[in-house]
Amino acid sequence: MKMHITRKERFNAAHRLYREDYSDEKNLEVFGKCSNPNWHGHNYDLYVTVAGEVNPETGFVINLKQLSKIIREYVVNKLDHKNINLEVDFMQGKLASTENIAIAIWNELEKPVNELDAKLHSIKIYETENNFVEYFGE
Amino acid sequence: MKMHITRKERFNAAHRLYREDYSDEKNLEVFGKCSNPNWHGHNYDLYVTVAGEVNPETGFVINLKQLSKIIREYVVNKLDHKNINLEVDFMQGKLASTENIAIAIWNELEKPVNELDAKLHSIKIYETENNFVEYFGE
Amino acid sequence: MKMHITRKERFNAAHRLYREDYSDEKNLEVFGKCSNPNWHGHNYDLYVTVAGEVNPETGFVINLKQLSKIIREYVVNKLDHKNINLEVDFMQGKLASTENIAIAIWNELEKPVNELDAKLHSIKIYETENNFVEYFGE
Amino acid sequence: MKMHITRKERFNAAHRLYREDYSDEKNLEVFGKCSNPNWHGHNYDLYVTVAGEVNPETGFVINLKQLSKIIREYVVNKLDHKNINLEVDFMQGKLASTENIAIAIWNELEKPVNELDAKLHSIKIYETENNFVEYFGE
Amino acid sequence: MKMHITRKERFNAAHRLYREDYSDEKNLEVFGKCSNPNWHGHNYDLYVTVAGEVNPETGFVINLKQLSKIIREYVVNKLDHKNINLEVDFMQGKLASTENIAIAIWNELEKPVNELDAKLHSIKIYETENNFVEYFGE
Amino acid sequence: MKMHITRKERFNAAHRLYREDYSDEKNLEVFGKCSNPNWHGHNYDLYVTVAGEVNPETGFVINLKQLSKIIREYVVNKLDHKNINLEVDFMQGKLASTENIAIAIWNELEKPVNELDAKLHSIKIYETENNFVEYFGE
Repeated sequence: MKMHITRKERFNAAHRLYREDYSDEKNLEVFGKCSNPNWHGHNYDLYVTVAGEVNPETGFVINLKQLSKIIREYVVNKLDHKNINLEVDFMQGKLASTENIAIAIWNELEKPVNELDAKLHSIKIYETENNFVEYFGE
Repeated sequence: MKMHITRKERFNAAHRLYREDYSDEKNLEVFGKCSNPNWHGHNYDLYVTVAGEVNPETGFVINLKQLSKIIREYVVNKLDHKNINLEVDFMQGKLASTENIAIAIWNELEKPVNELDAKLHSIKIYETENNFVEYFGE
Repeated sequence: MKMHITRKERFNAAHRLYREDYSDEKNLEVFGKCSNPNWHGHNYDLYVTVAGEVNPETGFVINLKQLSKIIREYVVNKLDHKNINLEVDFMQGKLASTENIAIAIWNELEKPVNELDAKLHSIKIYETENNFVEYFGE
Repeated sequence: MKMHITRKERFNAAHRLYREDYSDEKNLEVFGKCSNPNWHGHNYDLYVTVAGEVNPETGFVINLKQLSKIIREYVVNKLDHKNINLEVDFMQGKLASTENIAIAIWNELEKPVNELDAKLHSIKIYETENNFVEYFGE
Repeated sequence: MKMHITRKERFNAAHRLYREDYSDEKNLEVFGKCSNPNWHGHNYDLYVTVAGEVNPETGFVINLKQLSKIIREYVVNKLDHKNINLEVDFMQGKLASTENIAIAIWNELEKPVNELDAKLHSIKIYETENNFVEYFGE
Repeated sequence: MKMHITRKERFNAAHRLYREDYSDEKNLEVFGKCSNPNWHGHNYDLYVTVAGEVNPETGFVINLKQLSKIIREYVVNKLDHKNINLEVDFMQGKLASTENIAIAIWNELEKPVNELDAKLHSIKIYETENNFVEYFGE
């Protein structure tokens, strides 16, 4: 009985898309208004999906309270009400695109989630209601 | 031309997570406030996804009215405004976790859906806006 | 500068609509499937709206963290994962209709909210996505 | 680093489900109220998902502005505020079912999206909040 | 104990905004793409709000099943999967704007709702997620 | 025939809640994590409601395209992908609370909306799905 189980969490953060080795003009050309040097921000919605067998004793794949606690400790507490470019340890030296945030969150969660006797399946992030990415760890 | 087609239905029900062979303390430890002996409840959102070829005559994989009728007859009418632990025939003897509800709904729907010349693909259930499971029949 | 400010909270609970002085048949006739003796439940969405002047020093009508804390302490913690008919002190002896829950929540919150130097304006409760009530304290 | 990235767009259109070679009675029997000769309509939600590698220079799979521009040019501008049966070039001679709209949109977008150095992964269309289809190009 | 209680219903319909006494050019100028002679359509969301005292015997302002039945009989069944300009009796001779639909629905519902021992308070219609009107009967 | 008509727009922005005349400790005490010196951000949802008579010739209170254009020109283009504290002319010298943003948006829109032969009725802003303010101009 294999199942996917998903927990939604949220974080509100500032960021900027730009490269230091680009001129301001090149940053504007490539990243548009997302390159604003004074930052902008989003209410990000994060969906963490875990795959596993249903434990016949509990009826659970995983205890969602534990999953939520892990997501908050490893990811949300570091991102929420922060500047993603300046303040988030696991985003240092990376472009703060939604794609890169998803990969970095996968890397933060893979080990602690897999210790729960399940397997991290995907990280899905909505930057706005119109744009989202999904990463499967490969 | 293979396609997935999904119908959303809803049911509002009471349930409790607990094991009779656990003490109240053990139930509280494992299932938290979901083990409340006086029950609690949810507005469940149910997504039934069917896979199949598009019929060139009708442009349909499946007639959604028929699919909706089957879901209501086999599943929703038995769950809606009910106590999942006490009153739902296909949940008897099972822990009323979202995972187990999804598996039981799959088992109820697999035969009647597959008689529609399509194939049941997945059962997805939202217990709250933050928690959902998806089962693919394996 | 008068403003309305609203905080949304949630609770998941079981309830039943019925009168002890009605027969089962009469309860079924008046309250329909909501009279199920084995209970059913909902994910309730609660909107608490407060009216007040904007404090020129803070830019706030009210500190939303404080408002959220009050709502959780006086209302949500008593309702969440509970049986509204059996376990909620401020609903004892009352029919557990959404209307009566809204009035009771108003009565619980009026004093502590008004001590925040603002005025409770309305209590809005969604029982389902299709049904909601709004109470203004009169 | 393979990723799925999705852009949501919307269009509001009229349509009718029917076959000219069916009688009115047969159309009503097969397509129900969707066969109304005077048309009806929907707010369609369209999700276009693209799969690709993250470009290490930009942090993007694809520039979402470009993707949005392509979707509007090839698809949304032709469908929005139109009659799908009468006015949409890529739906001529086809039954205007959500399944067929999804296949036709795939066919319109496959070439221009794949020229963006990514790969069209799926077309998902919500006709109502309760009904949606997803097509993967096979 | 005065309360507002709201029921949400939905209808999917085709319409067109235009005046017969305008030229096509004038219609296009005033009504934009909504004047398309071949129609377009929407998933309309309708919120009917009723005001009244809570009945101490039932805990209800009004029985929502009855309210829903009235809305469907007088309004939704006439609009759903219809052409608002051509087929809806209470819209004959009127411009099919959301404003006029709201007024016409008020006029249809005022008498039957007020016979329920309550008072129609407002009609709110979403034409799209971005546009809605609210009418209070005056 | 008086009517309220509402247009929803969106903007994504960075901000910070703090007072220069407070110490960092005092800012943290009063504004919590919203005082982060490195900024954070939100997807703001803005609802502009206008009141007016329905024009019998057009069936409109107001042309929503014009309303949307005014909102974008006077408000959204100045806020979207910006830093509210540093870059928005009508927020200079003000605490960037949702309350103050709502008042400032009212002041920007009142004149151009009232020139449309209608009357600005309210400004409602969602900062998150759980927090919103509504301002009526008084």
